[in-house]
Amino acid sequence: MSGDSLKVGVLGYRFMGKAHANALARLPMFFPDAPATDRHVLVGRDEAALAKAADRLGFETTSTDPESAIEDVDVFYNLGPNAVHPEFSIAALEAGVPVFCEKPLAHTLDAAERMNDAANAADVPAGVAFNYRFVPAIRYAKRLIDEGVLGEIRHVDGAYLQDWLADDDAPWSWRNDESVAGSGALGDLGAHTLDLARFLVGEQAGPIERLSGHLHTFTDERPVDETDPNGETRPVTVDDAYTAQASFANGAVGTFEASRVARGHKNDHTIRVLGSEGSVQFSLERLNELEVKERDDRGYRTVLVTDEDDPYLDHWWPPGHVIGWEHTFVHENYEFLTSVVEGTEFSPSFGDGYRVQQLLAAVEESDASGEWVETPADD
Amino acid sequence: MSGDSLKVGVLGYRFMGKAHANALARLPMFFPDAPATDRHVLVGRDEAALAKAADRLGFETTSTDPESAIEDVDVFYNLGPNAVHPEFSIAALEAGVPVFCEKPLAHTLDAAERMNDAANAADVPAGVAFNYRFVPAIRYAKRLIDEGVLGEIRHVDGAYLQDWLADDDAPWSWRNDESVAGSGALGDLGAHTLDLARFLVGEQAGPIERLSGHLHTFTDERPVDETDPNGETRPVTVDDAYTAQASFANGAVGTFEASRVARGHKNDHTIRVLGSEGSVQFSLERLNELEVKERDDRGYRTVLVTDEDDPYLDHWWPPGHVIGWEHTFVHENYEFLTSVVEGTEFSPSFGDGYRVQQLLAAVEESDASGEWVETPADD
Amino acid sequence: MSGDSLKVGVLGYRFMGKAHANALARLPMFFPDAPATDRHVLVGRDEAALAKAADRLGFETTSTDPESAIEDVDVFYNLGPNAVHPEFSIAALEAGVPVFCEKPLAHTLDAAERMNDAANAADVPAGVAFNYRFVPAIRYAKRLIDEGVLGEIRHVDGAYLQDWLADDDAPWSWRNDESVAGSGALGDLGAHTLDLARFLVGEQAGPIERLSGHLHTFTDERPVDETDPNGETRPVTVDDAYTAQASFANGAVGTFEASRVARGHKNDHTIRVLGSEGSVQFSLERLNELEVKERDDRGYRTVLVTDEDDPYLDHWWPPGHVIGWEHTFVHENYEFLTSVVEGTEFSPSFGDGYRVQQLLAAVEESDASGEWVETPADD
Amino acid sequence: MSGDSLKVGVLGYRFMGKAHANALARLPMFFPDAPATDRHVLVGRDEAALAKAADRLGFETTSTDPESAIEDVDVFYNLGPNAVHPEFSIAALEAGVPVFCEKPLAHTLDAAERMNDAANAADVPAGVAFNYRFVPAIRYAKRLIDEGVLGEIRHVDGAYLQDWLADDDAPWSWRNDESVAGSGALGDLGAHTLDLARFLVGEQAGPIERLSGHLHTFTDERPVDETDPNGETRPVTVDDAYTAQASFANGAVGTFEASRVARGHKNDHTIRVLGSEGSVQFSLERLNELEVKERDDRGYRTVLVTDEDDPYLDHWWPPGHVIGWEHTFVHENYEFLTSVVEGTEFSPSFGDGYRVQQLLAAVEESDASGEWVETPADD
Repeated sequence: MSGDSLKVGVLGYRFMGKAHANALARLPMFFPDAPATDRHVLVGRDEAALAKAADRLGFETTSTDPESAIEDVDVFYNLGPNAVHPEFSIAALEAGVPVFCEKPLAHTLDAAERMNDAANAADVPAGVAFNYRFVPAIRYAKRLIDEGVLGEIRHVDGAYLQDWLADDDAPWSWRNDESVAGSGALGDLGAHTLDLARFLVGEQAGPIERLSGHLHTFTDERPVDETDPNGETRPVTVDDAYTAQASFANGAVGTFEASRVARGHKNDHTIRVLGSEGSVQFSLERLNELEVKERDDRGYRTVLVTDEDDPYLDHWWPPGHVIGWEHTFVHENYEFLTSVVEGTEFSPSFGDGYRVQQLLAAVEESDASGEWVETPADD
Repeated sequence: MSGDSLKVGVLGYRFMGKAHANALARLPMFFPDAPATDRHVLVGRDEAALAKAADRLGFETTSTDPESAIEDVDVFYNLGPNAVHPEFSIAALEAGVPVFCEKPLAHTLDAAERMNDAANAADVPAGVAFNYRFVPAIRYAKRLIDEGVLGEIRHVDGAYLQDWLADDDAPWSWRNDESVAGSGALGDLGAHTLDLARFLVGEQAGPIERLSGHLHTFTDERPVDETDPNGETRPVTVDDAYTAQASFANGAVGTFEASRVARGHKNDHTIRVLGSEGSVQFSLERLNELEVKERDDRGYRTVLVTDEDDPYLDHWWPPGHVIGWEHTFVHENYEFLTSVVEGTEFSPSFGDGYRVQQLLAAVEESDASGEWVETPADD
Repeated sequence: MSGDSLKVGVLGYRFMGKAHANALARLPMFFPDAPATDRHVLVGRDEAALAKAADRLGFETTSTDPESAIEDVDVFYNLGPNAVHPEFSIAALEAGVPVFCEKPLAHTLDAAERMNDAANAADVPAGVAFNYRFVPAIRYAKRLIDEGVLGEIRHVDGAYLQDWLADDDAPWSWRNDESVAGSGALGDLGAHTLDLARFLVGEQAGPIERLSGHLHTFTDERPVDETDPNGETRPVTVDDAYTAQASFANGAVGTFEASRVARGHKNDHTIRVLGSEGSVQFSLERLNELEVKERDDRGYRTVLVTDEDDPYLDHWWPPGHVIGWEHTFVHENYEFLTSVVEGTEFSPSFGDGYRVQQLLAAVEESDASGEWVETPADD
Repeated sequence: MSGDSLKVGVLGYRFMGKAHANALARLPMFFPDAPATDRHVLVGRDEAALAKAADRLGFETTSTDPESAIEDVDVFYNLGPNAVHPEFSIAALEAGVPVFCEKPLAHTLDAAERMNDAANAADVPAGVAFNYRFVPAIRYAKRLIDEGVLGEIRHVDGAYLQDWLADDDAPWSWRNDESVAGSGALGDLGAHTLDLARFLVGEQAGPIERLSGHLHTFTDERPVDETDPNGETRPVTVDDAYTAQASFANGAVGTFEASRVARGHKNDHTIRVLGSEGSVQFSLERLNELEVKERDDRGYRTVLVTDEDDPYLDHWWPPGHVIGWEHTFVHENYEFLTSVVEGTEFSPSFGDGYRVQQLLAAVEESDASGEWVETPADD
């Protein structure tokens, strides 16, 4: 670290770049004990777009050379398309620069394994930005599960439904290209759900030992230009939707599903965990709430998780003054940067990202073989 | 038929016996065009309990001899445990007596096949009491689907969650015994969901062509006497929960699940169908409502399906005066008895029950083999 | 009482006639300890319609002469328009015949007072059919309030919204005629809400001591024939909507409202009671549920009030198998007829009906004077 | 304006100071066309606390002298307790400095009138921070109402329920002191509801012409120190709750209510508008949603108001990525500062704040007199 502030380099300046830049900008006011940061360099390929984004997002400089940018920073954020994750994340880790990488960890299991190896060999934090772990209601759910309020875990069901690809003429992007994205709804959305399942019940129910999966593509090609639906098209080489069922080490069962063609659902990520004693249900579109059924309760309580002693909430507003989706980025940046400065472990780590990638790969393998797949044992 | 009224014989006098007897009793006031019926004979084994039930449920006579009871009636209701369904249903059909049988059709696929054969050979209606087809909101959903409001069907997800076996010391009953019940949550609850899936989207999405299933038993033995949890126990030889994923002929995907140990859920049967143009969502605990998203709608509408032009509702009360679970039995009895008198086909038929039984068997086969199972093609 | 069964005479054969006839018909199967009844005579003016209704509703005879019908029965149900309530209810009571009268008790405060006097002078039960007191979830709410779970009562808010008069050309009926109905939404709907408020918190918060009210009519005349909206019209002489605010004896405050022109609301009757320790919320369109917040709960629980030990539920179906609006009539008929046979007091009594009528009158008086009105002290 | 950036002075550094400082800090990244601002001076009385707050909230300087601070800035934010609003707001306006003042406008009607006069005499914007006008779902509701989707407005009901004073030993603060706050739940919460009612339906239904109100205080004194509930107490001289009913110029009726002792409700601000053709319902705790019933809809749609063409949403995140309470401050600061630079009118103005204050005063007057109160005609 050079000077008082961490110099942060960020690769990617679109949706995720904006979300993380905003998080960095908000830390001083709301998390005054967070490490100080400089938004030092914004990395990309298109110089004009980059300059404009750097100006808006508050970066000091720009660079089209990730390698040299990495040399120049204390922390490297890898927010590019999935296929861009491995090379520069590994380069940074080999240079001793902590890495915060967007999810899924990589576009292939092999690349994810190499990234995990690099993280294990490095002496600095390597985190994956599974931001939904940092929703206060999810943290609260985990606390209840850890305290045994749910008893033995029996059912874990998750679905992540969006509809931005529901129209056949919704435009093609790299997210429809297997060589860049790895998979479609599976890696884009399912990675979040599978990570949450691991986060919430991993200690109580153990890992997912076996799973069976299915992928489907409803629209095989899409126009390049949304204003010209009859113009050039490109093939969709990833899934529009996946389903899976899973068996956890303790016998718990689960169903998982995601779709980008689920008409009527915008960002509808739900997860429920049912135990022998109690249960919880969560919905991302109402992220300030958690449905909780404790042992002696009749029915679920709708808990507004905005009290002062709720996770992270003392940093924000009085009870009932709800937060938004973006706040999860502030929380995860706070935790990650604290790990960087204090040298502590950050989770979700590249190890967590790699385990999720193994599950994604297992879904694909099962879809191909028509058989249940055992997942690696080292979870 | 002897005289003006159909003489009805009913085997079974507990939960289902009460539900159907009530339905028969209510038809004259609310469905005056329904065939007249006599609750003629109630059939069972325990004479004392039978006499008491017959008195309460309004039956003229009782019998402990199903065979002779069948000879004496115009219609035979088979509401006994699953393993009792085949013998007497087949006997009735062979005697030319219409049969209304509770679900699932049988305890084994083989028995279900024989029942279906008997129904095909007979000249009288043979119906399966999948009563949820007769929820007005479900009928309304089907109407929307048939009219193309949902477009191409893409996702079909159903879950049926109960918690009456969530405690390890919840008492053993025949529903925990494979030799009588065939399966557990799968046949008891899953049969309903799979039937609804067929009913709602069978014509648009085609049959479920392939599926993968999983069964799990959380509690291996249960006390015989709930007041003596440490006393004699019997083994649980059926599943407490199942999960499945399915692929429909048109490529639609689906997840299915049921549990009798789902803490916090009493009779929580949900099904949702997402299409390229619109979507619907249903929950049995709020059975007067249907969530509907039509093409140009922003978000789902909560439709209270109690208007005069909603299915069956003109028979009941003004808009907004909600009906209950039991009303579905009145509707299905109305339709079945009308078929009996008019000689028309009734659905769900034994053929429908047999197709569902094939799906149940496929879930079990997949669980055993660890492989996806193709379902028979003649759906 | 003559013989084994109570001979019941019912004046009115439309909506309410059907609801009570159904209730009487269902008692033997579900409440076997209820007094036996004969649906003996159905009373009305139009002989042809009466005969048809009697046939469908299962009455032995019909009569167009209420006075003589009353002489002939053990119990008299007065289900006619409000203005018909006083004369025949008083006649029955003076003849020593128990009376069950629909709400509101009368069309004027004076008539209600005379009815109450007659009830006080009689030696038989005189009940008002405020059926929402017999919703299991409302009974459960009252139990919680009586047990002190809510602590000191602070807020009582109720709204009853319907939209069957939202269109200007919805047809005129006696319910729009002050001389027959007394008032509009106020007496038709508000009477229910004010009765529930008294029922739920009367013992804890004391009576409504003062209130301020407002009435409004949005549509001044309506067509006689809905198929001819441009044909003959009649004046609407009652309110389409009322609002009120109230102060209870213990200082609790409340708002009340009803409308028959509330677009989008079918039978949306909600009431909530907030206390110093806990709170409850109820909605009639989801009448199997109660929202409950107990002292140490975070947030409201959604309780499905269908368990075996919930009020009346042991008579019906297993947990989660929801009941409908009509079941409240079975419950109130059971309680009323039991009172008749056992000679016990029934509530809501004519006294309760009279107190509600005083509140209705106070709303009208306040609307006219523009001042708060003290309500009579003897509640 | 001196130089490129507006120099902003802010009086108040607690809850509202933080909310506005955050809004100012976020504008450049999300509203790049917003005027540039310097958080120039933070004004208060306690120098140590002020210095700490200025550091955290990003202010360049601090001042304990509002008068001189006003001389030094381009815009003045008055976020102090209500009684502090008049003097310094008027001073700023007289100095030609635009003022953005928290709600309610003042602690007395007289003071509010003087503030309004000063605003009318000044040549710069004077805005009141009724931030809920800037919730996207509220803006969307207004658009629907303005477009006539709801037809003639008939019912406007609003309730704002909190429970932070539900415990008798919740500590005393200036918000319990009439001389500083003016009123309690009425001015603190009810001002928001009454402003929203004016905003949403003022053009369609006209002003509230008459109203009737009621105030109540449940807890008469509160401890000064919450850690010493048996220690010194101070008297509560404001209401814990108010209720009101209102009549709009077009005949629409309404009920209004707020409470700070509503157990189980954290920040539960709801408003619904029912019209002859359609209806909308809003709840602040689910502020990304609007319930909408259009003419031909069956039932309400739950609209997630997060699409790109929804108000302000193009500045934030993709559809379904929900925003929080604080975003309303960003929106209102954007609009206010734009008015300052462009010299356009800002609403809600001091005029709007004064009209609301007239309604607050009318509620108090009605409570005192027991009579309906006509509100001033110039709305």
